Amino acid sequence: MKIIIEENYEKMSRVAANILLGKMYQNKRVNLAITAGSTPVKMYEYLVADTKNKPYFDNVHYYNFDEIPFKQKQGYGVTMTNLNTLFFQPAEIPESHIHPLDENNYQSQDKRVEQDGGLDLILLGIGTDGHYCGNLPGTTKFENLTSYVGEDATEHMKDILLSEVGGDENERPDFYVTMVPKSVMQAKEIVLFATGRKKAIIIKRAFFGPVTNEIPASLLQTHPNVTIVLDQEAASKLY
Amino acid sequence: MKIIIEENYEKMSRVAANILLGKMYQNKRVNLAITAGSTPVKMYEYLVADTKNKPYFDNVHYYNFDEIPFKQKQGYGVTMTNLNTLFFQPAEIPESHIHPLDENNYQSQDKRVEQDGGLDLILLGIGTDGHYCGNLPGTTKFENLTSYVGEDATEHMKDILLSEVGGDENERPDFYVTMVPKSVMQAKEIVLFATGRKKAIIIKRAFFGPVTNEIPASLLQTHPNVTIVLDQEAASKLY
Amino acid sequence: MKIIIEENYEKMSRVAANILLGKMYQNKRVNLAITAGSTPVKMYEYLVADTKNKPYFDNVHYYNFDEIPFKQKQGYGVTMTNLNTLFFQPAEIPESHIHPLDENNYQSQDKRVEQDGGLDLILLGIGTDGHYCGNLPGTTKFENLTSYVGEDATEHMKDILLSEVGGDENERPDFYVTMVPKSVMQAKEIVLFATGRKKAIIIKRAFFGPVTNEIPASLLQTHPNVTIVLDQEAASKLY
Amino acid sequence: MKIIIEENYEKMSRVAANILLGKMYQNKRVNLAITAGSTPVKMYEYLVADTKNKPYFDNVHYYNFDEIPFKQKQGYGVTMTNLNTLFFQPAEIPESHIHPLDENNYQSQDKRVEQDGGLDLILLGIGTDGHYCGNLPGTTKFENLTSYVGEDATEHMKDILLSEVGGDENERPDFYVTMVPKSVMQAKEIVLFATGRKKAIIIKRAFFGPVTNEIPASLLQTHPNVTIVLDQEAASKLY
Repeated sequence: MKIIIEENYEKMSRVAANILLGKMYQNKRVNLAITAGSTPVKMYEYLVADTKNKPYFDNVHYYNFDEIPFKQKQGYGVTMTNLNTLFFQPAEIPESHIHPLDENNYQSQDKRVEQDGGLDLILLGIGTDGHYCGNLPGTTKFENLTSYVGEDATEHMKDILLSEVGGDENERPDFYVTMVPKSVMQAKEIVLFATGRKKAIIIKRAFFGPVTNEIPASLLQTHPNVTIVLDQEAASKLY
Repeated sequence: MKIIIEENYEKMSRVAANILLGKMYQNKRVNLAITAGSTPVKMYEYLVADTKNKPYFDNVHYYNFDEIPFKQKQGYGVTMTNLNTLFFQPAEIPESHIHPLDENNYQSQDKRVEQDGGLDLILLGIGTDGHYCGNLPGTTKFENLTSYVGEDATEHMKDILLSEVGGDENERPDFYVTMVPKSVMQAKEIVLFATGRKKAIIIKRAFFGPVTNEIPASLLQTHPNVTIVLDQEAASKLY
Repeated sequence: MKIIIEENYEKMSRVAANILLGKMYQNKRVNLAITAGSTPVKMYEYLVADTKNKPYFDNVHYYNFDEIPFKQKQGYGVTMTNLNTLFFQPAEIPESHIHPLDENNYQSQDKRVEQDGGLDLILLGIGTDGHYCGNLPGTTKFENLTSYVGEDATEHMKDILLSEVGGDENERPDFYVTMVPKSVMQAKEIVLFATGRKKAIIIKRAFFGPVTNEIPASLLQTHPNVTIVLDQEAASKLY
Repeated sequence: MKIIIEENYEKMSRVAANILLGKMYQNKRVNLAITAGSTPVKMYEYLVADTKNKPYFDNVHYYNFDEIPFKQKQGYGVTMTNLNTLFFQPAEIPESHIHPLDENNYQSQDKRVEQDGGLDLILLGIGTDGHYCGNLPGTTKFENLTSYVGEDATEHMKDILLSEVGGDENERPDFYVTMVPKSVMQAKEIVLFATGRKKAIIIKRAFFGPVTNEIPASLLQTHPNVTIVLDQEAASKLY
C-alpha cells in the first residue's frame, strides 16, 4: 500500500490525474475503470486538458463500475450521465472506447472485463461509511460478483436511491448495479483518492483498521498494488 | 482465480512443480516462498530432480513463511528443518539463496521481502480448518503484518505446538512466527494446492464461500492472481 | 539473455516444454507463437501429454509465425500441416485457439497479434545460416514488418522452396510469408532452442558475435527477455 | 513503438515528465536512467516541481548512462555535473538514490543494474547523427556491453571531447564511458524524445529506416516497449 499525501485538493487531483496518465502512455490496450461523483471533478478538468485531441491515447478504454438507472428517463443512468458530463464529452472520447455497465449487462461484467484483458487500473472514491462503487455496508459481500442491489437491501436504500436521482420521486429506481469487492480486487492496480476533513476518520479506519464487511473499503488494504491519494485534510487522522 | 484439477496426487504434484519451474526460468531474481509439510513431498521430489546441479537457476531465492522454534534444540525450527530435508539439501540450494524467517527477524520480514523485490510466487498448503502458513483461525487477522503467535492464542494452541515438535514436551515452544494474510496477499502470484478427500470440504468453503477470518484462506479468493491446484479427491465437493 | 544448457536432446526438450507450460498456467489469455520443424519433435511429445484433455489450458492461444503454401494442394501449408501433426491434432487443441498466418492475412498479422494482446512468448528454432522463422539471410531486414518473400529473394530460394514441399515440383510455391525480426522482437519473451553439434557454431556467432542482417538471429541477443535453451552439443563452442 | 507528437517544446516536455512520473508512482523500487543535455531542460523544471519534498517518491532510484570525465577537475564528470544542476540538486534527491556511472565502475555497470532489478525506464535524447548516450556512429556496436570509448575511436573524437568540456584544453579527457545499445535494450521501457526541426530528418531515418550501426538509434525501433515523444518540428518529416 502506497500512501500519497498532497497539500490540497488541487494538488491531490493533479497527482490522481498523473497516475492515470502514467498508465495511458503505453503501447498496448489500457483498460481504466473510473469514478463519478464530486471528488474527481478537478481531476477530470486536468484530464480533459491532457487527453482531448490526443490521438496517441487511442489505446485507452474506459469502464464505469456502477450504475443507478433513472426510473423513467431513457438512456444512461446517474453514473454514466455524470461521467459523460465530467469527462467523456469534454474530452471527446469516442463511444467505441467507452464500455458502459448497466442493468442489462451487469451479470456478464466480470467476464467481459476479463476477456478485454482485465482492468489495468480502477480509480475509486470512498464514502464516509467506507463504501466504494455501490458497495455500501450491508449491500454486498467480499465474495460476490458484480451485483444487483435492490431497494430493500438496507433500511435506508430507498432514501439513498432517491437522493442519487436528485430527489425526484418519479425517477427513483428500485435498484442499482455495481462491481463488487472481488471484481475490484481483480484489477492490476487500485487507486483510491479522498479529499477533505470529513473523510479523515474513514480513511484511518478503512486502511489502518480491521478488514471487515462493515467497512467495505477495508478489504482494499490487502491488494498487492494499491495506492491511496489524499489531501492533508483527508490524511489528518493518520499521524 | 484459476482452478486446476488433476487426476491424482502425483499429477497434482507435477503441476505444482511445473508452476514453480515456470517462474524460475527467468533472467532476473525470482523470489519464491514455499511450504513445508506432507502435501509437497512428491512435488519436492520432482523439483529436486529438476533443479539439482542446474546453474541456470542461480537467479532463484527461497523464503519460508512460518517457523516453529524448538524449545531447546539450537538452530533451525520445525519448518526450516523440514524444508532442508525435503528440498534445500537434496537439491543443494546454496545458503546464500535461502532466507529464513525466524523468531529473531519476523518483525522485519515484510520489509525485507519488499526490499528484495517482493515475492514472485508463494506456494501454500491448506489445513482442514482453513489455515495456511501459521494463520490458524483465531490467531491472526486479515489486517496484521508478519506476527508472533503465543501459546495462549487459542484454546488448543499448546497441543498444536506440542504436536508440531513431534510430541516431545521438552521441545514444545511457547510460540511460533508466521507471515499473515496481508503479507501473503502482497505476493505477485499465489498458488495453493491440496490433496485428498479430507480437504474437499474446506476447499469448497474457502474458495466458494464467504470471506471471513474464521476461514483464513477465504481471503485468498480475492487476490488478482491466485491458482488452486487440486487432485480429484480434494476437488470432489466442487461440482 | 539467459543461457540454459542441458545434457541431451531429451532434457533440452523437457526444459523447453516446461518454459511453455510455465507461461500457460495463468489466469488470463496467453498467446504463444510456436515453431514447426525437427528440433521441437520431442518437446511436442511432452506437451501433448501435458496439455491433452486439460480444460484449465483453455486460456492458451497458438500462432504460427511463417507459412509456405503448397502450389496446388488446398488448405494449410507446410508449417501449419506440420504443427497440426506434431501438436494441434494429438493435443486436441480447438480450432478457435489456433490463429493461422497465411498468404491471405500476413499483411495484417502484426496488427492482429497486437490486438490480441501481443505474444507472451515466441519459441524459435535456428538454422545453421542463422535464420529463424522465414528470416533467411538476404530475405528480410531488421526493420521490416511481417513479409512476403518471393522465389527470387535469394539465389537459392527456388531450391529451398522445393525442398520445403518435399521435392515435389508440382507443389513448389513461388513464395512464403513470415513474421520478421521486428515482429519477433515485439514478443514479451523469446525462447530459442537448438540441438546437436551442427548448430554449435551458429549459436556462438548469433549470440556472442556481431548483430548483423547476415545472421538474422543475432538481433535477438538485444531483446530484454530472451532465453537460449541448448543441449551440450549445441553449446559446445561457447566455453 | 508508440509515437507521441505534441505541439511544441513545452508540451513535449510536459509529456516526457508525465511518463516518468507515471513510472514513479509505484509501491516498489523504480530504477530510472535519465539523460543530461539541452533537450530535457524544461522537463526537469517540471520534474523538480513535482518531486521536490515528496516523500512518497522515496522508492525511485536514478542512474546516468554515460560520463565524460574532466581531465583535471576532481569529482563528477560532464554528465553527472549537468544532471546535478538540472535535477538532482534542485529536486533534493538524496545521494543514496543516485547511482553514478563513471570510469571506475563502467565494467560492472550492466551487472549492477541487473542486480538492482533492471531499469524500469531509460529516457534518451538523440543527436543529429543518430547517437544516444555515448553511442556515436563508429564508437560502439549493437553487441557491446557498457564501454570505454577512447579519443581515437573516430576521426573527430578529440574535438568532440573538447567540445563536451566547454572547449577547455586542460580539461579535455582521453575517453568517455557509456551504456551501449545492448545495455539500453535491456530496459523494460525506452523513451526517446526530441525537439526542433534539426532533429526531424534523423527521427525519420532512425525509426522508419534501416536498422544499422551507422545510425545507432535505429536499433531502438525493435524494442518491444519504446515510445518516441516529439514536438511538431521534430516530427515534421514523418507524415
